Amino acid sequence: MSARVAFVGLGVMGFPMAGHLKAKGYDVTVYNRTAAKAEEWVKKHGGKSAPTPAAAARDMDFVMTMVGNDDDVLAVTTGSDGVLAAMAKGAILVDHTTASADVARKVFGLAKDKGIAFIDAPVSGGQAGAENGKLTVMCGGESAPFDRAKPVMDSYARAVTLLGAAGAGQLTKMVNQVCIAGRVQGLAEGIAFAEKAGLDADLVLDVISKGAAQSWQMENRWKTMTEGHFTHGFAVNWMRKDLSICLETARANGAHLPVAALVDQFYSEIQAMGGQRWDTSSLIARLER
Amino acid sequence: MSARVAFVGLGVMGFPMAGHLKAKGYDVTVYNRTAAKAEEWVKKHGGKSAPTPAAAARDMDFVMTMVGNDDDVLAVTTGSDGVLAAMAKGAILVDHTTASADVARKVFGLAKDKGIAFIDAPVSGGQAGAENGKLTVMCGGESAPFDRAKPVMDSYARAVTLLGAAGAGQLTKMVNQVCIAGRVQGLAEGIAFAEKAGLDADLVLDVISKGAAQSWQMENRWKTMTEGHFTHGFAVNWMRKDLSICLETARANGAHLPVAALVDQFYSEIQAMGGQRWDTSSLIARLER
Repeated sequence: MSARVAFVGLGVMGFPMAGHLKAKGYDVTVYNRTAAKAEEWVKKHGGKSAPTPAAAARDMDFVMTMVGNDDDVLAVTTGSDGVLAAMAKGAILVDHTTASADVARKVFGLAKDKGIAFIDAPVSGGQAGAENGKLTVMCGGESAPFDRAKPVMDSYARAVTLLGAAGAGQLTKMVNQVCIAGRVQGLAEGIAFAEKAGLDADLVLDVISKGAAQSWQMENRWKTMTEGHFTHGFAVNWMRKDLSICLETARANGAHLPVAALVDQFYSEIQAMGGQRWDTSSLIARLER
Repeated sequence: MSARVAFVGLGVMGFPMAGHLKAKGYDVTVYNRTAAKAEEWVKKHGGKSAPTPAAAARDMDFVMTMVGNDDDVLAVTTGSDGVLAAMAKGAILVDHTTASADVARKVFGLAKDKGIAFIDAPVSGGQAGAENGKLTVMCGGESAPFDRAKPVMDSYARAVTLLGAAGAGQLTKMVNQVCIAGRVQGLAEGIAFAEKAGLDADLVLDVISKGAAQSWQMENRWKTMTEGHFTHGFAVNWMRKDLSICLETARANGAHLPVAALVDQFYSEIQAMGGQRWDTSSLIARLER
């Protein structure tokens, strides 16, 4: 009999991730705050839906959550209808939300008290990675449950790595976001500079993207940035949530993040320009006002 | 009979570039300010050396220059012993130095008055690219001489592109440097953050470098950055020269470069720490003090 897996949170990421689990033959039960989305998922993929996170998690071998932020993670895990209220001893809880390491450690501790293993497992690769099953999963927790949960996560990932104790997955995701923040701004400054200098920005980017200036962001975003289209990718509001976690963590452990802090402020300007839902590449919009 | 080419400036870039020309069968004459270096080149590659830029450039079909900065470019091209004093009408002058677009336009005009074509042609790819003949060359100038000079530059390049009128090559190189500056700082912040958070930085970088945070800088520098080795690549003093050109140009044309300006200041701190000759990845050193 195949393992039973609950998936809580069917947003743009969770919906296809849960679909990959079902396609791999797992016995999947889903929960979503907006029930219509769960019904849509069941209609498309089969499986079952449940009225609460706890109801979805009952008798499951694995419970995966993919929700919005720290408060959402706490609600669906430790709340009165949360999954920990129903999970059996020996079951494994995996949270794919990008959240704080503090919350990861808190849920880890509460789960451990009940004999349940917890793995913080934020992902990178975006909506496209979720849809084509090629996410990178960065995990924190203990190695025995990680080894059991890895084949499940492999359903929607091309790399699943344990990076340390509880919270290490979240911290690694923050490193990822810190590395990217300065890069998107640099790309925006480069494109705006090229346009102000009267260059053909498309031709310039085509040339420099073949050298050491190459990056995922340059390859995948420069055309839409020069065209001013910001409706396709990771939203500014979500990036600000991630950067807020990065900056709070850095404040606590004495790390210096001057460019990440500056870029976070630039994103606040984008929000003020009405760009809460724009893609993160919209940083160029404030340079071109 | 093969074309005659003069190469002026045999530094870490020019020395191997001139060598590639000789290996391709061009009739090469070199000049270098420190004559011993020119003798070393002749001993290794054959060809001839000359006592002044003008002497090297006399009767040449093509003259390539690769020197330090704006003043050096003006000295070897427009100075009393500069190449323009000796070049024949119809010959082509190519400057590979990373210099200002203003100087490129100035030399272009002075050359044009003498019936000589000028192409500003800064490169990317670094010392390794020069040595293995895989530079990217970004050109500004007129198309007819560009078409004639391109096969010569192909000797040491994998891509040679005309990006617009005089100065367009230099402006494109500046776009390249602007895109890279924020990225190296972001990478430094990410690594320092990982270390402060108690993560295994090598493991973290290995994981995130396979996702959207991937970049040339991450792939080629994170190991040396975590080890604190900064002696292998493009020097801080040279990056500050490039960023100074970027920032002056931006001031003149109204472009905003907030992160490039901030990173330029960080590099001034690295210089004050004694890191004038350190690699640009040494930005991490000021985060780890």
